[in-house]
Amino acid sequence: MTQYQRIALASRPKGVPTAANFRLETADLPAPGPGQLLVRSIWLSLDPYMRGRMDDVKSYAEPVPIGGTMEGEVVAEVLTSNAEGFASGEIVVGRVGWASHGIVKAKEFRKVDPGLAPISTALGVLGMPGHTAFVGLNDILQGQGGETIVVSAATGAVGSVVGQLAKRKGMRTIGVAGGAEKCAYAVENLGYDACLDHHDPDLAAEMKALTPQGVDCYYENVGGKTLESVLPRMNTFGRIAICGMIAWYSGKGTEEAMRLPAAWRMILTRRLRVQGFIIFDHANRRPDFLAEVGPLVKSGDIHYRETRAEGLENAPAAFLQLLEGGNFGKQLVRVGPDP
Amino acid sequence: MTQYQRIALASRPKGVPTAANFRLETADLPAPGPGQLLVRSIWLSLDPYMRGRMDDVKSYAEPVPIGGTMEGEVVAEVLTSNAEGFASGEIVVGRVGWASHGIVKAKEFRKVDPGLAPISTALGVLGMPGHTAFVGLNDILQGQGGETIVVSAATGAVGSVVGQLAKRKGMRTIGVAGGAEKCAYAVENLGYDACLDHHDPDLAAEMKALTPQGVDCYYENVGGKTLESVLPRMNTFGRIAICGMIAWYSGKGTEEAMRLPAAWRMILTRRLRVQGFIIFDHANRRPDFLAEVGPLVKSGDIHYRETRAEGLENAPAAFLQLLEGGNFGKQLVRVGPDP
Repeated sequence: MTQYQRIALASRPKGVPTAANFRLETADLPAPGPGQLLVRSIWLSLDPYMRGRMDDVKSYAEPVPIGGTMEGEVVAEVLTSNAEGFASGEIVVGRVGWASHGIVKAKEFRKVDPGLAPISTALGVLGMPGHTAFVGLNDILQGQGGETIVVSAATGAVGSVVGQLAKRKGMRTIGVAGGAEKCAYAVENLGYDACLDHHDPDLAAEMKALTPQGVDCYYENVGGKTLESVLPRMNTFGRIAICGMIAWYSGKGTEEAMRLPAAWRMILTRRLRVQGFIIFDHANRRPDFLAEVGPLVKSGDIHYRETRAEGLENAPAAFLQLLEGGNFGKQLVRVGPDP
Repeated sequence: MTQYQRIALASRPKGVPTAANFRLETADLPAPGPGQLLVRSIWLSLDPYMRGRMDDVKSYAEPVPIGGTMEGEVVAEVLTSNAEGFASGEIVVGRVGWASHGIVKAKEFRKVDPGLAPISTALGVLGMPGHTAFVGLNDILQGQGGETIVVSAATGAVGSVVGQLAKRKGMRTIGVAGGAEKCAYAVENLGYDACLDHHDPDLAAEMKALTPQGVDCYYENVGGKTLESVLPRMNTFGRIAICGMIAWYSGKGTEEAMRLPAAWRMILTRRLRVQGFIIFDHANRRPDFLAEVGPLVKSGDIHYRETRAEGLENAPAAFLQLLEGGNFGKQLVRVGPDP
């Protein structure tokens, strides 16, 4: 028996979540059964989609039950393997949840190559966020050199990869991020042609001034005022990939948002294509993603940035901050020491 | 010199148009120049898109200028030809506008084969509306046998063709139309599996009851409450083709409409594809459309219905009625006698 710590969903949030919605618990783990691994968590990934799992609403995934462990991807070390092909001491990535240890199915975990890049990147630039960026840009938006793309949450785990891959395609890249520091980083480190602060009260006018040729692709991570500044700039045959809408999570800002007819009219008259996507429908593209982006991360041609919280007990506070844009790049929680 | 009659745009409507926005005029036509035809109008087509041309708003086409002839497609007879390949007495179709005669460019006109079907069908089932239905169903929605499609304005010039072609593909077809008479016609004559009346106060509940397997494709002609009843029924990977939104033209109902975040959330979580389209981007598909649908109209396998107003002077009243759904099938205006 192994004692472990976990963060459980204590209650469902009404609107914006608070610390009271989470509970730190100690519990026991059994020994791993056939095909299972006992793993200890090193890095926990925090991601905006987790907000949706806290609600009891039908979506693409089941909600976390009250009292259940919060879901999430983790980079972990194998302590005990009861599965062929996995050995203790190996580093793996998969859905352990917000927990210090887990008994998991080996076939649902992938091995992490510590020689390629720091193991934490398996949760960020080389993990689900990077894969999401790659699919959204190439398969959903089908961005082409010479086109203009706007990327919201431009310095986030997903947006930062979208912007850099788009620039490498020869696209004009306009970022939108929260605050001067992120905007400076977007231009100086991530190579955006320009970056707007979504707090800017003149966001729509600034967006218009920055996009004299209009916008061909919009990579949507946020919704809100950012979307409303981009929609009127969309060119004929433009594409919008809806990857997230963090500005509207927890119901914030929805009462002041644009009504559907205005958007519908633009979609019709400009012949836009608006498409939602979820990365787990695109697992078949992971090898292509890793083949392209892996070497670029190793060579330092793709930049990434991490915000690290220390200790599983601080995961809820870090998550609440993430929802407010308080992270800078990929939000991680250090759950255990490196091997 | 030929004297002719035309309907000019007298003023721009504020909201719902009225008869005062139109003016009947008599004017003179010059003789046709090189490459031109003098034609006399037989049938004028009235279409919902014309509402958009009355506003001074940037769209996919230029607005009609104040004092200009209202735009529209016409089936006409050639009176004088100054263009190779066209002879007087031939029947042609093209943009004469709301006018009894016109001097037009021959290369912008197509000949109508009176042996295929009544010449008025060149404005309806075998014209732009039928072509629009064909492209929307096959290229935009990519409807497949076994899927469920909802068609709004189900008995209209476009929707009636969508429904029949979808049924021939083996789709389950649900229409939405205005009133019991249209709904009965939809099921009995057009072969819809069911048809809902958009006036029904329980439209959303009825839509839910009728679509136990959800909705894969929505052919959007109207917006409004119909859209709001369909959106929650959309299946994962569903498609919405936005062809029109007549319920929201003239600004009607837009203040009560759903806000964007609710729709955005459904597009994201269900991975929908929402695409606007305009038929003139798809001229290359006209031969395929005519090859498939022409024989079906000739054989009587595709049904169509027309509402005919008599006399150019009655075009404005007929158009105002069309905007309220007062037509039944394709709305035409008899401008001159058959040849």
